Parts: sequence; structure tokens; C-alpha cells
Amino acid sequence: MSKRRQRSNRKNLLTSPGTLTYVGPEIELKTEIKRVDFNARFHREEVVRNIAACAPDQLNKDPYITWIDVDGIHESHVIGKLGQLFRLHPLLLEDVMNTEQKPKLEHYDGGNLFITLKMLHVEEEEPLCLNAEHVSFVLGNRYLLSFQEERTGDIFVPVIERLKASVGKTRRYGADYLLYALLDIIVDNYFLILEKIGDKLDQMEDQIINGSPKFSLPELYALKRELTLFRRLVWPLREIIAQLLRDDNPLITRDVTPYLRDLHDHSMQVIETIDSYRELLASLVDVHLSSLSNRMNSVMKTLTIFSAIFMPLTFIVGVYGMNFENMPELTTRYGYFVVWGIMILVTIVLVVYFRWRKWM
Amino acid sequence: MSKRRQRSNRKNLLTSPGTLTYVGPEIELKTEIKRVDFNARFHREEVVRNIAACAPDQLNKDPYITWIDVDGIHESHVIGKLGQLFRLHPLLLEDVMNTEQKPKLEHYDGGNLFITLKMLHVEEEEPLCLNAEHVSFVLGNRYLLSFQEERTGDIFVPVIERLKASVGKTRRYGADYLLYALLDIIVDNYFLILEKIGDKLDQMEDQIINGSPKFSLPELYALKRELTLFRRLVWPLREIIAQLLRDDNPLITRDVTPYLRDLHDHSMQVIETIDSYRELLASLVDVHLSSLSNRMNSVMKTLTIFSAIFMPLTFIVGVYGMNFENMPELTTRYGYFVVWGIMILVTIVLVVYFRWRKWM
Amino acid sequence: MSKRRQRSNRKNLLTSPGTLTYVGPEIELKTEIKRVDFNARFHREEVVRNIAACAPDQLNKDPYITWIDVDGIHESHVIGKLGQLFRLHPLLLEDVMNTEQKPKLEHYDGGNLFITLKMLHVEEEEPLCLNAEHVSFVLGNRYLLSFQEERTGDIFVPVIERLKASVGKTRRYGADYLLYALLDIIVDNYFLILEKIGDKLDQMEDQIINGSPKFSLPELYALKRELTLFRRLVWPLREIIAQLLRDDNPLITRDVTPYLRDLHDHSMQVIETIDSYRELLASLVDVHLSSLSNRMNSVMKTLTIFSAIFMPLTFIVGVYGMNFENMPELTTRYGYFVVWGIMILVTIVLVVYFRWRKWM
Amino acid sequence: MSKRRQRSNRKNLLTSPGTLTYVGPEIELKTEIKRVDFNARFHREEVVRNIAACAPDQLNKDPYITWIDVDGIHESHVIGKLGQLFRLHPLLLEDVMNTEQKPKLEHYDGGNLFITLKMLHVEEEEPLCLNAEHVSFVLGNRYLLSFQEERTGDIFVPVIERLKASVGKTRRYGADYLLYALLDIIVDNYFLILEKIGDKLDQMEDQIINGSPKFSLPELYALKRELTLFRRLVWPLREIIAQLLRDDNPLITRDVTPYLRDLHDHSMQVIETIDSYRELLASLVDVHLSSLSNRMNSVMKTLTIFSAIFMPLTFIVGVYGMNFENMPELTTRYGYFVVWGIMILVTIVLVVYFRWRKWM
Amino acid sequence: MSKRRQRSNRKNLLTSPGTLTYVGPEIELKTEIKRVDFNARFHREEVVRNIAACAPDQLNKDPYITWIDVDGIHESHVIGKLGQLFRLHPLLLEDVMNTEQKPKLEHYDGGNLFITLKMLHVEEEEPLCLNAEHVSFVLGNRYLLSFQEERTGDIFVPVIERLKASVGKTRRYGADYLLYALLDIIVDNYFLILEKIGDKLDQMEDQIINGSPKFSLPELYALKRELTLFRRLVWPLREIIAQLLRDDNPLITRDVTPYLRDLHDHSMQVIETIDSYRELLASLVDVHLSSLSNRMNSVMKTLTIFSAIFMPLTFIVGVYGMNFENMPELTTRYGYFVVWGIMILVTIVLVVYFRWRKWM
Repeated sequence: MSKRRQRSNRKNLLTSPGTLTYVGPEIELKTEIKRVDFNARFHREEVVRNIAACAPDQLNKDPYITWIDVDGIHESHVIGKLGQLFRLHPLLLEDVMNTEQKPKLEHYDGGNLFITLKMLHVEEEEPLCLNAEHVSFVLGNRYLLSFQEERTGDIFVPVIERLKASVGKTRRYGADYLLYALLDIIVDNYFLILEKIGDKLDQMEDQIINGSPKFSLPELYALKRELTLFRRLVWPLREIIAQLLRDDNPLITRDVTPYLRDLHDHSMQVIETIDSYRELLASLVDVHLSSLSNRMNSVMKTLTIFSAIFMPLTFIVGVYGMNFENMPELTTRYGYFVVWGIMILVTIVLVVYFRWRKWM
Repeated sequence: MSKRRQRSNRKNLLTSPGTLTYVGPEIELKTEIKRVDFNARFHREEVVRNIAACAPDQLNKDPYITWIDVDGIHESHVIGKLGQLFRLHPLLLEDVMNTEQKPKLEHYDGGNLFITLKMLHVEEEEPLCLNAEHVSFVLGNRYLLSFQEERTGDIFVPVIERLKASVGKTRRYGADYLLYALLDIIVDNYFLILEKIGDKLDQMEDQIINGSPKFSLPELYALKRELTLFRRLVWPLREIIAQLLRDDNPLITRDVTPYLRDLHDHSMQVIETIDSYRELLASLVDVHLSSLSNRMNSVMKTLTIFSAIFMPLTFIVGVYGMNFENMPELTTRYGYFVVWGIMILVTIVLVVYFRWRKWM
Repeated sequence: MSKRRQRSNRKNLLTSPGTLTYVGPEIELKTEIKRVDFNARFHREEVVRNIAACAPDQLNKDPYITWIDVDGIHESHVIGKLGQLFRLHPLLLEDVMNTEQKPKLEHYDGGNLFITLKMLHVEEEEPLCLNAEHVSFVLGNRYLLSFQEERTGDIFVPVIERLKASVGKTRRYGADYLLYALLDIIVDNYFLILEKIGDKLDQMEDQIINGSPKFSLPELYALKRELTLFRRLVWPLREIIAQLLRDDNPLITRDVTPYLRDLHDHSMQVIETIDSYRELLASLVDVHLSSLSNRMNSVMKTLTIFSAIFMPLTFIVGVYGMNFENMPELTTRYGYFVVWGIMILVTIVLVVYFRWRKWM
Repeated sequence: MSKRRQRSNRKNLLTSPGTLTYVGPEIELKTEIKRVDFNARFHREEVVRNIAACAPDQLNKDPYITWIDVDGIHESHVIGKLGQLFRLHPLLLEDVMNTEQKPKLEHYDGGNLFITLKMLHVEEEEPLCLNAEHVSFVLGNRYLLSFQEERTGDIFVPVIERLKASVGKTRRYGADYLLYALLDIIVDNYFLILEKIGDKLDQMEDQIINGSPKFSLPELYALKRELTLFRRLVWPLREIIAQLLRDDNPLITRDVTPYLRDLHDHSMQVIETIDSYRELLASLVDVHLSSLSNRMNSVMKTLTIFSAIFMPLTFIVGVYGMNFENMPELTTRYGYFVVWGIMILVTIVLVVYFRWRKWM
Repeated sequence: MSKRRQRSNRKNLLTSPGTLTYVGPEIELKTEIKRVDFNARFHREEVVRNIAACAPDQLNKDPYITWIDVDGIHESHVIGKLGQLFRLHPLLLEDVMNTEQKPKLEHYDGGNLFITLKMLHVEEEEPLCLNAEHVSFVLGNRYLLSFQEERTGDIFVPVIERLKASVGKTRRYGADYLLYALLDIIVDNYFLILEKIGDKLDQMEDQIINGSPKFSLPELYALKRELTLFRRLVWPLREIIAQLLRDDNPLITRDVTPYLRDLHDHSMQVIETIDSYRELLASLVDVHLSSLSNRMNSVMKTLTIFSAIFMPLTFIVGVYGMNFENMPELTTRYGYFVVWGIMILVTIVLVVYFRWRKWM
């Protein structure tokens, strides 16, 4: 999600449109495909070695749901093969591989529902840097395809576990509920990242209140930029879910709509939290800037106090450093001590004055 | 309503959706349920010991209104049981218990009307910190359920008293007027909090005008944040009441609509007052910042005046501190006094100059 | 219109809704009611002693227009009685007495047209503080009721005079034109207040251009707040007149519509002038703030010039104040004068340098 | 267009509405009326001495177009007479004379089309001050009336010349094209003024880049205010032309619509240029303010360098100015010269240090 | 795209409307016209010497597509001739030549589709200055005309090459796909420019983080202005493509719509990137300004430290430079060394103090 990566990704600028190219950073891992077949009574999970084994041809005979979970979208031949097996539109495949594609939902002629969105990871803690993983879903009749950009850290594991253990409603309901469960995990993940950002903001706020901010303005702006990007990625998600609810798609059953509505509420909550964080950040920036002025004030006061006290004193001693032959005070007995007295008096007067003006 | 609480409340992030969990802070008090049955001629009030005693089955026989006032929403079994008695939708119950749920109105299939909103308390006076209590209402045919987050300080007491004393229209009208009366109390409560905030702003303004602000910028921003949150909670309320007025719900009788319209006006007034406070706060921030510059100016002027007066004087006495053998002035009789005269003259000239430039 | 008054007015916060209470500041004067009956040939004006004398029952027999002008809205029994005579809705009466009610137009079942708005007075000149008087009109068939908050300074006098002198179209046209004439006076009054504010802004601008602003930032912000409030009161008026034009109300005759359109244009002009004043104020604030920086700059330059000139000089004289036994310069004949020469040279060089840098 | 004039113009505040009064500044010149009759083959131009000679009665007999160009709108009897001749609505005449009327288009019952807008003149160059001249058009069947506020500098001259010389399409087409031609001249005039403002902005920008801005902040804000006013006057014009295109007015023939569309594009371009100038001005203000900070920085550095160099030196010479009896250094042979060496060394070290910190 | 050029271009301000005039900067090159005829099996490319050779009369007989690529739009007779050949509307030709025309799409009566937009070039690298080239397309039945402002650097070359080499779908599809291919090249070109701007922003950001910004505020604002202009040119393009998709134009076949949708997505991405750059720029400005304050702070601290340390020391040595006859310390044996000790102590105390306050 760093500014740099985002830009350099459009490598295929001048190629003919409609060509399958993975534009994300180069990844060495090979694509790993997992297939899970299940219904309320039945469950089978396997790692697919041969892409042909993903074929949905037996789907019609058996009343179970098939979930193909593809980890890695950089090998265009694998994606292309899958597209052939499930008769997916070439533009859909292009969007699966285009990591720059922003979240959207599209209906395709074959009756498939295509959703692409971003999963977020905290790439670096200090300074906080988010990383967006491109995730796509194809929901068909009795099957769901899911595509993830990188294999490391599959966050769909809890759902896989729930399916295996027959926990929750995931096994009882259809592919639409499975889609919901996966989307829900992604949104829940957003909350975890929000919590990290929130902790960071709390820290910063505490430091500012204690008067010892350990962060610089560019850091605040960097965090603000991450939040802006975060918002830009979550905003279309809210619309996608609203669209799922609005459309009368036969793939989305009535049982699942209340859950989608719940998901919609959560995505709204993510956006609201981001907004309140942005507002908090803006006020942190303001407070930070004004604290600069405050410190300047305190520096200037110190300088002024020193100058105002020592300048008169230095003048007084200068006076009696003059070499005039006729300076009556010099020959008096206690002249020296009287001068000391005067100087102490001047100092006291000035200190009292500065205390009265609240500079000390 | 502090930023911290708000975040840490989503404890059930990764649990299966649809499970009843109270997510607010832990409260030790047990749920207390009060039941009031009344019509124009009849009134009965009791504290419910056994949840079954809430059962609405006798509702159809007797032409009186039943109000179940539930204090405490952290015991999921109690809420669940009530849900069974009144045949409430599980998602409705979830929203009753989810203290993070923002205000909304929903119609449920059984014909129930569900409203959830926030009651506000001043948690701390200095710095002002608001606390949002989650309140929900279920309006059915001839009954009203009300749910409050915490038992301490029930603000519905005036309505309970009015019902007992047969004062006002509450006894004559139906459950919809009771709902209105309770909503009205909540909105009136908003005005009380606005008054507290207003007093605080008045204080701050006076301090600024007197030139001795006793508050810091972070305090101003904290207050601004509370106002922002306040607004975010009241804004949907306005929409909820508008929806009640717009919809042609049989539960809302024509007699009650003018009162709801009045309530709508009041919620508008709350929002407008919040907005004017936010504007006032923004200008307080600006004035505060510019007063920093002003003080800096005054410090700098002091420094400049001291330097400008004593530097020439120190130079003059320095001149006659030189040890040249041939310095004619030193041997003159009144040289020393002439130098004093010159120094006094220089001082006067400079003081006049600075007065002319309005620095003194 | 001061922030304080506005808040403390909601005294009836926790009373039962629908009760007639005057919430404005306490006023000792008693309500004064004036009745004017007129048509093109006939005119009668009387001060009403007994409220019953306002009764509209003879309205139907005589083809003249009746105007009841009520000065003072704090005596609820008077307002209540009038409401009975003209069969006005209780909520309408509540709005007549609620000085916090913002401007609005409402149609009531009886065919009455209810308009409430704010008249503005300059309460204090220095600092400028506006005062909003609550004014309401009830337009019925052949009669108009007008309600003003305070008796002092009735601005409807010109219309009363015009009716008496049979000047203008007021006598020829119906009650709708009378309503227009009164609204027109209120809007014209807005222009007078705008002129006062404009003069104040002109003064401030001149002071800034002359470089001697006699106002402080809080004063600018106070003026801005008055303008904001002004705008908030005029804005709904524009909508009210537009509604009068849009609606096909039989009480508004076709002859009067062009005048109402004219009034609409004027209210637009008020809002635009307010907006341009607000913009002007914002730039005054900016200029004021930057003038602070400018003055700081000038203070700093003075300090720097003094320091830069006297520090080298003081150093030079310090050198020859040293007591080394072997300092050849001290014993030369013109050493002292040479040093003076050097010091004058140094001064000239520095002055030239600072002139070149445009600091002097 | 100065703020002052704009306000003082509403002299007729409290007079009865519907009276013809010229509210602009007093002008001594008498109204001058020019009449041009033309069609493709025929052309007659005369200065009208007697208003009756403007009478459109012969219009129906001859198939030519009549254009009455009125210079001066301050003589209400002249305007009133013309209104009688062409049977114009009194409110239309009022708008012709009300120089405060903002641009608008109105259809009147008689089938006339009334357009009023503002022509702009540069009143003063330094500081740039715009002057808005009130211009109105009445388009009727086969005639066009045009009204200008002041006689000096008639910008319609090119059209008069073109009609005389039979150049362009003006002679061939009807009164609607003539209206277009006059509007076009006004819009073209806007571009000339934009160019003047643009040149001024260019100058200012160059001065800022060269680091020697010769303008003050109030000047920038004054320019911004002129631009805001400019925009406010052009904005409704865009809407007026759009309305001419949208409405199905029989007075506007199909041949003229493409030209009006072109005019619409031009008025859009004016607004966009104004907006880009405003943006440029905003950034000029920002740069100007930051240059204040920059200069302050440079002043402070100078002060710091002087202080930091001469303070240690003055201290050193002070040390050897002490009068202790036992100060071994004083009696050494080269003590004085060693001290000079030390002082030069200290100076070099400090200069190197400040160079390293990039302060010199 | 510099502010200056944009303004001075409207040379034909006061000429009669509807005249063909090229308003861009003067270019000496002559118009160069290239004609390409092609279908899936056939391809012919020629440089047109005689404009008549562009004639589309044979278009109806042969089932191939004709593309006329015109380089140079400053010779009005050439453009006029082409307009006659293809029976184009005069206003269309005017827009082709008016380099100030902002992007738009228009349908003309003859069934032609007219699109005009801007191609961007980086004119200068340091400071970055963009140059907008005016490009227009006329899509007819089986032909496409393209007009470019300047002949140097034809960016349509890749498409010409693809046609020649029979690569991609360009040869198989119709004129609408050719239009898409050319639009696509222009949008891709936008991305290249965005990348350049992005690199520049990266550099600036790095410099700020390293604390040594090598750019000035005016430079940042200049870049911001370029981005604003960029956005203003791309924004209508997005609308143009949306219109192409929305309208049911027979010239746009169904095969091409998915590609246009893709192009729409890309233009959205351009706008979003511009927006994120603008936001980044805004924060760079803020950070830059605050770094000024920071540097001022550091300068002031240095000054204060020097003053605070040397003022007391200078005072001390001044004391013992006094010439009183009775100063007991002067005659003590180690007085001088004790004074040195005291001075070192004072210095240490002050250094410790400033370290504690984190000023050193």
C-alpha cells in the first residue's frame, strides 16, 4: 500500500488490452489450490495437484458445494486453465490477476457473480505501513472460487477449520453463506488493523498530553495517508454488499440476506472508525504544530529573562570599570559593596517583574 | 464515549455471526425488570422476579397497555428468554445487546417496531467526558419493551411517576405515546448535556477574553471530539423520528404524530446547537493559537527594548574602560558626569522611540 | 442573540409536552393589542382593552379586513384567549410563544396560514450584538393576526400610518398584501442592520490598511458569530416566501405574487450580502494574523540591528580594556582615535549591509 | 463594484414597493437613445430626440428589425415613457433601473423576454478595482430594447458598425441574433478583464519567485474579493443562456441556438478561468505568508550568528580586563597576542560550525 | 499548459463568431495527413499529398475502414477542405481548431460522433511543466478522422504499427475499436505522466524526511497547479467515455463496450491517482511549513544557549574589572583562579540545565 508500489505496478501500460498479465510484485511461490467439497453431512478437503481436478463437471450430479481456494494469482496459465474449466469471462480473469483493480462487484452473462476486494496486512509496525492483498471471489451455482494474491498467511483457515469440524451454519447453508463467511473474515480483519492503528494513535495522544511527542509531523502524515488508502479500499466494499442486498440475484438466498445486512453495518462501522481516526489525526497535527509555537515561546522567554537580568548588571559593572580620573564613587570606602547591593536589588526587581508577567 | 472503550468493545470479532454476546464493559449488577400495566382507569406496577411474569399472553384479553422496562442488557439468557416470550427476532436481540450498534429504526416481520439509540451521561466533568448508554425500544401491539444498559440512574423515572400519579396524557394514550414520552425524556436529557457543554464553552470564552486561558489546546480538541461523537449519535435519531412520521405504521396513531413532529424539531435543535458549539470551538482554537503569537510578540518586544537600551550604554562605558594612555576625556574634570548625561540622554531617546512605535 | 440567552431559554425542558409557556426573557410590560379594520373606503383603528373585542364574528358580515396586532407574547392567558376566538390550533399558539422556534411556515387544518420569523435589533453597538425578536403571523380569510415579542419600538408603525393615510396599495388590496407589507418591513429592516455591520467592517478594513487595527481577534470572531446567526435566521425566510409562491393557497391572490417574488429576491440579496461579509471577515482575520507576524518581523529586525552593531563595538572597546602589560597599541599617540575610526567604519559597513538587506 | 457603493445604493429601503427609482450613483448626463432599423437590404440609424419616435407602431407594417439602444437609466420618466410605448410590465421597468438587481432572465406575459446582466469595467488599475454596469435587454417580436447604465464608452459600437457596414450575419438574422451579438460582446469583454487580472497575477507571481513581492496581503485579498464578485455576476449569466437554450421560446429561432451554445461554452470558460485565478491567488497568499516566516528565519540567523561570535570574544577580553593583582597571564610578554590568536581561533570554529549548519 | 499561454490564446475575442481560426501558438510545420485503409485481410497506408485523396466516396463500395490521421490543425483551409469532403458541421471544425476547447463529446446531425480531448506532454522537467495537445476524433460510418495539434512526436504510431503488422484485434474490429485503441493510448500516456509526477513527489518526500528539502514552496504550488489542470482535463474524459457507454449509438458495437468500460475504469484510476497526489502535495506543503518553524526553533535555541552562558560570565569578569579602590577580592592571592572556578561552575550548571530541557 506504499505509494511507490502502487505506481510501478502498471507495467503493461502499452500492451494491447485484454491480455492476461499479473502486475503485482514478483512472487516465487507457486500457485497452491485447495478444494473443499461439503454439504451438511459430507466433507472432503484436498490439495489440488492437477488443475483438471478442479473441474466442476460432477457438480450437477452431487448435491454438495465445491469451494476452490486459489493461493497465488501470478501464474497466468493456471488462472487461464481455471477460467476454461468454469467458463469464466476473460475480462473477469484479467481482474482476478490485476492487483491494481479496485474493489467491485460484477455480474457476468454466465450467471456468475464476481467480487474483488482487498485484504489488509500490517507490513511494518514502525512506521505503520499497510499492505493490500488482492482477493477475488467467483460465486456460481453450487460453487465458489476464491483467489488470493499471496500464499503466506491464509486468513481463510478459520472457515476451513469450521467446515472440517462441522461447526456453525457454514456446512448447512449454501455457497452464498460460504461467501458471506469469507467476506466476514476479511471485514473482521479490518477491525484488527483498526485496533492497531487506534493503539498507535492512543500512544501518540498520550505523548502529546505528556508534552513529549516522540513522533514527527511526516510520521503523522504518513499515518494519515495509510488511513486515506484504507478508506478508499473499504468504501467500495460497503457499496458491493449493498448491491448484493439490493439485486434480486438467485445466487443469494433469503436466509443469507440478514447476515449480509449485518456485514453491511460492520463495513459502515469500519468507515466511521476510519473517519474518526482521520479527524483525531488532524487534531494531533494541529496540536503538534501549536506545541512547536509553545516551545518557541518558552525558549524566547528564557532568552529574554537572561538578557534582561544580565544586561543591566553588566552595564553597572561597566560604569565602574571606566578609567576617569575623577570618579568620586571609586574612592569611597563601601562603594564596591553598595554597587553589589544595587545589583542584587535590580535582579530582585526584574525577577519579581517576570514572575508577575508569568514568564518564570 | 472515550476513544479507548469504543474500540476494545468488539471482543467477538472472530466468533461465528449470530451469537448473542454483550460487548459493553463488564457490569456486576443483575438485570432488573419492571413491569407496568395501565390504562386510563387502571395502573399496576411491579418488579419482575421471574421472567415468565413478563409474558404478554394476557395482553389480548385486557384492554390495558404493558410496559416492560429492562435495566441491564448484559445477561444474554435474560434477554434471550424475553425474546422467546415476545417472539422477537434473534437479530433484534443481538442489536439490543450490542452496545456498539448505532441508532436505527427497523421494522420486523412480526409487526414489531425496533428503535435503538443512545442516552448520554456526563461521565467526568473535568475534562468533560461523555458516556453513551445503549437504549432500545420494541413497540408492539399494546406493549412496549424498553432496554437500558446500566441500572444506575434510571432516567425513565419521571414517566413511571407520571403513570402512577395519572398525570398528563400518558395514561390516556396508547403504547405509542408512551414511546414518545420516553424518547422525549432522552432528547430533553440531550439539552441538559448541551447546557453543560455550553457553560464550559462560556467559561473558556471568558478566559480568552480576559487574556488568561486556563485550558490547553488538547483540551479544546478533546471537547471537539466529544461534540463530534454527540452529533454522530443524535444525527440518526432525527432520521428515526422522521421515518416514524413518514411511514404509515399502524402502531403510530394520528394523535401522536404532532408530538413526534415536535420531537423532530427538538432533535433538529440539538443538532443545530451542536453545530454552533463546534463553530464556536473552532474559533476558540484560532483565538488561542493567535494569542500564542501575541504573547511571543510581547516577549520579543521586552527583549528588544532591554537590548536596545543597554547595549549602547554598555558600549559607552566600555569606551572609557579602555586603557589608552592618551585619552583626553579621562582627565577632564567632569568627564564622568558628562558621560552619565550622555547615557541618560540615549536612554530617553530610545524610550521615546519605542513609545512612538507602540512597543512600550 | 447572545449565546448565553439562547441556551438558558429552554426552561420547560422536563415538563409535559403541549403546555403553553413563554420561554423568552421575563418582560414586565403587559400585552398590548391594536385592532385595525379597513377596506378601500373605510378605516377604524382602536387599542383593544378587552380581548373579546378582537372577536372575528362580525368579519363575515362586513367586507373589510381586520388586522389584530399583538405586542407582547408572554401572557399565556391572552394568547390562549385569542386562540379560542380565532379557533387556532394549540400547537400554533405554542409556536407563537416559543421564542426559540426558528422561522417556518405551516398550513393548519382550519385554512389558516401560520408564519413565524425573527425581527432583528442592534442591541449593543460596541461590540455589535444583535437581538432577535420573535414575530408570528396568522393569515386567515379577511383577517391577519400579528404577534411581536416586545412592545418597545413597534416597526409596523409605517404600515399603520399608511393605512390611516390611505397611502399606497395596502388599503385597496386584501389581508395577503397586508402580510406582504409587514414582511417587507422586516426584510427592509434586515438591510438596515446589514448596513450597520457593513460600516463596522469598513472601519475595520480601513484600520487594517492604515496598519493600526483597533480591534482584537475575539471581536472579529464575535462579529462572525453574529453574521452566522443572522444567516441562520434569514435562510428559512427565503424558503418560506418561496413556499408561499409555490403553494396554490387561496389566501394568496395573484395580484400579490409579483410582490412576493420581489420579496424573495430581496431575501436572497440579504443572504448574499451576509455571505460576502462573512468572506470579508475571514480575510480580515487572515490579514490580522499575518500582521502579527509582520510586527514580529519588525521587532526582530530592530533587535538584530542593535545587537549586530553594538556587539562588535563593545568587543573592540573590550579589547583595549585588557590589562596586559605589553599591549603596543595602548601607548601609541593616536591609538584611541584610530580605534574610534575603526568603530565608526564598522558601524557604517553594518548599516550599509542592513540597508542592502532592506532591514532598515 | 466596491463594497461601499454596493451598500449605500439601497436608498429606497422604506418606500412603498413598486415605485420606479434609479438607485445607482448620481449621473449628470441625460439619457441618450439611439434607434436602428434594419433588415438584410435596409438600414437606418438615428439618435432619438423625442421618445415618441421610438414607438413600435410601424413595426407591424415593415418587415424590418428595430433596435432601441438606451444609454442612461437614471431618468425614470424616460424609462416610464418607453415602458408605455412598448407596453412593458412596471416590475420589468423597476428591474431595468435597479442597478442592484443581479443577472436574471424573465418571461413576461406580453411575450417579452427580459434579460438583465452586468457589464464590467476596470475602474482603477492600481489596485485593480472593477465597476459593474447594469445592462438590460427586452426582446420582443421584431424589436430589441437595450438599456445601459452610463453613456460613456458604449461597448455596443462594434455591432452598430457591423450593422451599418452590412458585415456578418447580424443584418440577415432577426432580433434574436442581434441579442446574441450584444451578449457575445459583453462576454468577450469579460475575457479582456480576465486578461488584465491575469497579467496582474503574473506580475505578482514573478515578484514572489524573485523573492521581492511588492504587494501586501490586503492587496491580494482585495483582488480575491473582486474575483469573487466577478464570479457572482457571471455565474447567473451561464444559467440565463442555458435557460434560453432550454426553453422553447418562439422568439429564439433554431438558427441562433448553436451560437447561444457557443456563448454558453464561453461563459463556462470565464467561470473556470476565474476559479483557476482564485486558486492561484490562494496559493500566492500561502506563499506570501510563508515568505514572512522565511524572512524571520533569516533575521534570526543573522542575530544568532552575531551573538554567538561576539559573546565569547567579549567574554575573553573581559577576563583580561579584570583588575586582580595576581593574574600571571597579564605579565607575560606575548599574552596579548596569544589572546588575539585564541579569539581568531574561536571565530573560525564558530564560522565553520554555522556554515556546517547551513546558517551562513 | 502554462498559465500564460492559456490566456493569450483567445486572440479572436472580438471577431464575428463562427469564423475558422486556429488560436494555438504559431507553428511553422505544414499539416501532414496520413490515410490508412484496412480490414481483416487488407491494409494500405499512404501519406496524403492532395486533400482530395482523403475523399470518403469509395467508402461505401469497399468494406474496409478508412482512418485519416491529420497532424497539424493550424491551416484552416486544410481543415475546411476536409470538412467539405466528409460533410462536417462548421462548428465541429471550429472545435477541431480551437485549442482552448475543453474535452467534450457531441453528436452531430449527419450521424457523426465528435470527441475532442487533450493529450499531455512533459514540456519541461525542472520545474515540471505539462503541455496539453488538442486532439479530436470524428467517428463516422466505416471511417475515423483524427486531428492532432502538432506533428512532432505522433503517439499514435504504435497503433499504425499494429495495423501494419496485423497484430491485435484492431484489424478485425471496426472504426469504433480503432477509436478505442487511440483513446487507450492517450489514457496510457496519462499514466506515464503520472509516473513522472510520482517520481518527483517521491524525491521531494525523501528530501523532507532526510530534513534537507531542495525545493521551495512556490515549486510545490506550481506542481499543484499542474495537477489541478491535469485533473480538469481528465475529468470530462471520464464523462465522455461514460456517455459513449450509456448512449445507444449505432456506431459503437457491442463487442467494443467491454473495452470502453475498461477504459472508463482506467480514466477513473487516473483521477484517483491525481487526487492522491494532490493530497500528498498538500501534506508536503504542511510539512515544509512546519519544518520552517522547526528550524526557527533550533536557531533560537542556539542563540539562547550562547546568550545564557556568556552573559553571566561576562558579568562576572565585568565585576572584577571595576576600579573601586576597596575591592578585597582583587588583592587575595588566588582570587583570579577562584573566579575562573566559579565561571566554570556556572557554565556546567547552565549546560546541565539546557540538556535537561532538551535544548542541547
